[in-house]
Amino acid sequence: MKRILAFLAFGATLFANAQSKNTAADPIQYVNPMIGTHKMGHTYPGATVPFGMVQLSPDTDTLPYEVNGKYNADVYKYCAGYQYDDPTIVGFSHTHFSGTGHSDLGDFLLMPTVGTLQLNPGTEQHPETGYRSAFSHADEKAQANYYSVRLKENNILAELTATDRVGFHQYTFPKTDEAHIIFDLMHGFYNYAEKNVWTFVRVENDTLVTGYRQTNGWGRTRIVYFAMTFSKPFKQYGAKDYSKPAVYKGFWRKFDQTKNFPDLAGQQLRMHFDFDANENEKIQVKFALSSVSVAGALANLKTEIPHWDFERTRTEGQKRWNQELSKIQAQGSPETLTNFYTALYHTFLSPTTYMDVDGQYRGLDQAIHRADGFTNYTTFSLWDTYRALHPFFNLIQPKRNADMVSSMLAHYNQSVHKMLPVWSHHANENWCMIGYHSVSVIADAIVKGTYKGDAMQALNACVQTANYARYDGIGEYVKLKYVPEDKSSSSVSKTLEYAYDDWCIAQIAKKLNQTAIYEEFMTRSQYWKNVYDPTIGYMRPRLSDGRFRKEFDVLSTHGQGFIEGNAWNYSLYVPHNPEEMITMMGGRKRFSQHLDSLFTMYLPDKYFAETEDITREGIIGNYVHGNEPAHHAAYLYNWLDQPAKTQERIRLILKKQYQPTADGLGGNDDCGQMSAWYVFSALGFYPVAPGSEQYWLSSPAINQATLQLENGRTFEILAQKQSDKNVYVQRVLLNGKPLNRLYLTHQEIMEGGKLMFTMGPKPKN
Amino acid sequence: MKRILAFLAFGATLFANAQSKNTAADPIQYVNPMIGTHKMGHTYPGATVPFGMVQLSPDTDTLPYEVNGKYNADVYKYCAGYQYDDPTIVGFSHTHFSGTGHSDLGDFLLMPTVGTLQLNPGTEQHPETGYRSAFSHADEKAQANYYSVRLKENNILAELTATDRVGFHQYTFPKTDEAHIIFDLMHGFYNYAEKNVWTFVRVENDTLVTGYRQTNGWGRTRIVYFAMTFSKPFKQYGAKDYSKPAVYKGFWRKFDQTKNFPDLAGQQLRMHFDFDANENEKIQVKFALSSVSVAGALANLKTEIPHWDFERTRTEGQKRWNQELSKIQAQGSPETLTNFYTALYHTFLSPTTYMDVDGQYRGLDQAIHRADGFTNYTTFSLWDTYRALHPFFNLIQPKRNADMVSSMLAHYNQSVHKMLPVWSHHANENWCMIGYHSVSVIADAIVKGTYKGDAMQALNACVQTANYARYDGIGEYVKLKYVPEDKSSSSVSKTLEYAYDDWCIAQIAKKLNQTAIYEEFMTRSQYWKNVYDPTIGYMRPRLSDGRFRKEFDVLSTHGQGFIEGNAWNYSLYVPHNPEEMITMMGGRKRFSQHLDSLFTMYLPDKYFAETEDITREGIIGNYVHGNEPAHHAAYLYNWLDQPAKTQERIRLILKKQYQPTADGLGGNDDCGQMSAWYVFSALGFYPVAPGSEQYWLSSPAINQATLQLENGRTFEILAQKQSDKNVYVQRVLLNGKPLNRLYLTHQEIMEGGKLMFTMGPKPKN
Repeated sequence: MKRILAFLAFGATLFANAQSKNTAADPIQYVNPMIGTHKMGHTYPGATVPFGMVQLSPDTDTLPYEVNGKYNADVYKYCAGYQYDDPTIVGFSHTHFSGTGHSDLGDFLLMPTVGTLQLNPGTEQHPETGYRSAFSHADEKAQANYYSVRLKENNILAELTATDRVGFHQYTFPKTDEAHIIFDLMHGFYNYAEKNVWTFVRVENDTLVTGYRQTNGWGRTRIVYFAMTFSKPFKQYGAKDYSKPAVYKGFWRKFDQTKNFPDLAGQQLRMHFDFDANENEKIQVKFALSSVSVAGALANLKTEIPHWDFERTRTEGQKRWNQELSKIQAQGSPETLTNFYTALYHTFLSPTTYMDVDGQYRGLDQAIHRADGFTNYTTFSLWDTYRALHPFFNLIQPKRNADMVSSMLAHYNQSVHKMLPVWSHHANENWCMIGYHSVSVIADAIVKGTYKGDAMQALNACVQTANYARYDGIGEYVKLKYVPEDKSSSSVSKTLEYAYDDWCIAQIAKKLNQTAIYEEFMTRSQYWKNVYDPTIGYMRPRLSDGRFRKEFDVLSTHGQGFIEGNAWNYSLYVPHNPEEMITMMGGRKRFSQHLDSLFTMYLPDKYFAETEDITREGIIGNYVHGNEPAHHAAYLYNWLDQPAKTQERIRLILKKQYQPTADGLGGNDDCGQMSAWYVFSALGFYPVAPGSEQYWLSSPAINQATLQLENGRTFEILAQKQSDKNVYVQRVLLNGKPLNRLYLTHQEIMEGGKLMFTMGPKPKN
Repeated sequence: MKRILAFLAFGATLFANAQSKNTAADPIQYVNPMIGTHKMGHTYPGATVPFGMVQLSPDTDTLPYEVNGKYNADVYKYCAGYQYDDPTIVGFSHTHFSGTGHSDLGDFLLMPTVGTLQLNPGTEQHPETGYRSAFSHADEKAQANYYSVRLKENNILAELTATDRVGFHQYTFPKTDEAHIIFDLMHGFYNYAEKNVWTFVRVENDTLVTGYRQTNGWGRTRIVYFAMTFSKPFKQYGAKDYSKPAVYKGFWRKFDQTKNFPDLAGQQLRMHFDFDANENEKIQVKFALSSVSVAGALANLKTEIPHWDFERTRTEGQKRWNQELSKIQAQGSPETLTNFYTALYHTFLSPTTYMDVDGQYRGLDQAIHRADGFTNYTTFSLWDTYRALHPFFNLIQPKRNADMVSSMLAHYNQSVHKMLPVWSHHANENWCMIGYHSVSVIADAIVKGTYKGDAMQALNACVQTANYARYDGIGEYVKLKYVPEDKSSSSVSKTLEYAYDDWCIAQIAKKLNQTAIYEEFMTRSQYWKNVYDPTIGYMRPRLSDGRFRKEFDVLSTHGQGFIEGNAWNYSLYVPHNPEEMITMMGGRKRFSQHLDSLFTMYLPDKYFAETEDITREGIIGNYVHGNEPAHHAAYLYNWLDQPAKTQERIRLILKKQYQPTADGLGGNDDCGQMSAWYVFSALGFYPVAPGSEQYWLSSPAINQATLQLENGRTFEILAQKQSDKNVYVQRVLLNGKPLNRLYLTHQEIMEGGKLMFTMGPKPKN
């Protein structure tokens, strides 16, 4: 019942956002940050600017990672802090991942309350027992860089906006002499409170509070400094330390630290700041972050928001969103535009800026560095984002993508392992997932001419990374020419992805005329062949002794040598050489049957149950779009000269896996990878093998789109007669001339021009 | 039995140090760092340079602060890490307090071992069960900036020396292919391991290791960075994490972090570095500290010891000790010179340098600051050291003392309370003991012209501090004109000391012609009168309602309104106005009787048992020299025109409380206060009221001493016919003219000249 009501409310919100205009001049009208906030999308609805360091967003709950010593599976729901069907909001915190399948962050929760002071969050069932509040989606607005909600509990209107490094809260109170702003330093995602290593707070004066929070979570050694300032002096404040009593108490016991004591530190602190408020009085809070120091946070605060004009900050941020989103001016149905621009919005959330206004940032070595000539970024979910997000940036955000490459190389320089990032955030390598896909991002940027830095140095970093023997079976991979399952689990996935990554390294070497490196890595790029078992026609885990493992289930995703995919999906993962893969897997006919079955078979329930991060709606047959390994699979029909099947499948995926509703994403958005897949595919082409210059054609879902390239040129895509029925490409003209192949090149786009599809209701193979 | 043998061995060491020469040209020959290392002295025997940031010293044990939830009283023995009668050494750590009665530090313990790897320290009874080793004092040498010991367990010679910021270890191994250097990041004093908040280690290459340790102990939020380099590459290394398993484990579990893994972090880590060694091969370690960063530690390392010449570092440090100690060239018996120069050595240990070679340091606000035009110091044990240590520095280390004042003012500027330090160390205020005695140090430096900075700013800091209402009853003190015991314990001690401190502030105001402040604080300086109970003739705790507390025991030191002293001792504490105090306490005759009884009565066992930090030898009658509140008491006879009694008592204290043996200090040396008392008194005068220019005369225990003043002048003290029997002053000539008063002025000393005492066996009042 609760869910049904919620959906009704959501529908209302959606159309409110999208009804007013229908051109793309003001594209944020089509952005609905609520999309993906229900179930598996793991997006957040709060306020942020493009690639901003602050993501100020409501959290509907947070749970401990373990309960009674056992993993608490529900913690996963709160990767982004917000679940659409939750009835309460606990508060507004300043850092969030978008779409991840694991988590951290949630730093510095603020929550306005009225009446009797409550420092604990309370429960969802009984919000009145804590500082949290019930809310309704009817009272909620989510836009690019603006979020508001009426907190039912106390009739407080909470509004949020942000700049790159500063969150701006505006709380409109009822008349009261007991207004509180709760400041919860224990709050966070995955391992609530327990993961705090240390927090430190100074109440500098009656409007300024500074300090830091240090955690040991997904990021092992993470620290965030803050400076918080209030628009109005608080009349009093207080704190409670929830840490388990320290063995050594020291002489701080001289002081009553619970009331108006300006000097606090401990593992688990909560604070409150108290005010009087007139009816509808707005009390504002600006909250700046820094990875460097309190001084850094203060400088960020003063530089980015030197005023108390909430609307100005909101408008400036929304203007920036319009500028970024206008890099693609698209036309299509309102639903398509909502999907398209929300996907574009999601692709522009991360990687996130990670440096102060003066360019200083905390490096992987925990030392302070200065970004020299580039913007330093963090939040690299590379196993996901190398596939389509970074290639998309190479098209539409090449300057930023080059800076991301610089950021990855800085990470490499700071790494004691001399490794490029695997999954990195906030000055930490969290080692999540597999592969060394930084090399794909770097190769793509070098091959496409986006990265203008020292390519030899970049190549060296890639080679070093690819040879770090202790990492995830690389030692064995180099020796045995495959990763043996008995030495390193998910060995087939690793072998396949390493082989692709090695091909990427070879592409850099080729461009730099480094023949020896090219030869070495082209040889390694063939190692995928070593995990193919011709007796069954699938990739299959091998053991150190050379034999294939006996026990094997091609439908299972658990313990079969794969990760987030089964053999049916993952066996297709040779993006750099589909031709040879098809031959090896039995030739075109057999491969075509396999591919068809992928999309049409029914995955028995027992296998579905073990598929991670995915709803039933998130799969098509046995094709799991919500996880990434088969993101290129539907494009493989192009190699079989069956492009109509690619077109049909792509349109089916676009339709089924992306819907303009809170639960519209079939799987985690994964820091924009799922959304980048949408944007590419909806435009009609996709980078099957980043590191090559080719974009493989599909079926555009928009009617028209103009890409504003950073070189000043434009590239227009037209899809004549495009409709839900006309999904088959009849003809393609590039700059008026027939394109007699199934791919475009990067160069062709960069030169500017016009790509015209003519669509029809029937295949034209 | 163990103790007797230990003393014999110690005697041998002592004379080995002192036998060769008998002039003061090479004064370090008289320094015996073993003095005070037994029982209550709490000194450490290891290597350090004058006021050095590194104190590299052997630790004979370390204990948890609590056992089964109860305070572990034995932890107190290890305030400085070393107890002379212990049979084993656990290793060598880099930071130590000298003579404190509470503790922290003990950062980064190294220990060389041979054979089977053992990562736990083992027990004193069974050192073979761990990495610790038995040792004998016969195999031990302790000198200024040099310490060596042969570790019996494995026949390893361990030698230590240091520069300001770098510890230098030299380990001579037997032939072995299993040499280990254990690196214990859990080790520390007071609250072993538990107080670690976080440790972080990077093995940068096969000779360089960096990282930091963060603790929550006496210093609530303390962090020390390090850079450690080996003279020879280790062949392998490893680590063990003793932290209780984290709730969230993360993806670091991909790696075997126990072997050759360069990237470690956790709450409780121990590491080992393994080597082959030839017979008598020396493996050296340089270990640099920084409060700022790893980069700071590396710069300190490279700047201070750019070579591997252990003897050079040792010699350079010892040369610096000779330079510092030669500021007083004394003559006397070998025993007196040993006492004198060891006391001088102890006065030059702290406050300790607290900044990197580039002047950067961590401030009280945990932010990084740069010391602009001064050396930043930490370790201010001010309740102790304002009495004699800082006044002594005003004479003999005025430049350093001015920098110490600058350091205290920097602390004030960084304090969110706007308070000068109470007891501060390593960027932390630990709030230990009472009073705001920074103002005494500042007043003394300003009155004596030592501090050349902005005196008005300093006065303002003093006034702010003295009015911080939340601190230790100041609010009530200002309102009621005494601290009420029912609101703040140790209320009489606080009232007496605040009154003295207020007089100090008045002295600064007077010098700066700030009449209003002068009047205000002169008024406050009379508040000692408000806790005098004329009906019993003692200072006595009062309650908020004005009544004296009924229950009262003048001999007890517990719960009677005093701290580290009973009413008998503490009632004498009006150093700024002894005259009026004597009158109030019944006049000269009655006061004289009281004073006599202090030194001659027998303190019943039940009262002795509750006297803190003191051995039975540490008291004379009821006079407790090992605690500070009566340090000026023996000088009060001068106000009674009974200077012979001062002379006799002082010589008795010098004789009984300072002996050239490991257990020769009757109480904690308290960061040099006890030693500064010795040096002043042995020279024949003492600053009864710092903040005044007067030094009150006693009976010199040296035969001759020349003070080398920083202004280039010398001040010579001669004690003709001085001997153990000739303790009475017969005549005093200043520059050849009779000195017809019982004090000298600072000015008279600063002008240079000669003070000649003629001594005799009988009083000459």
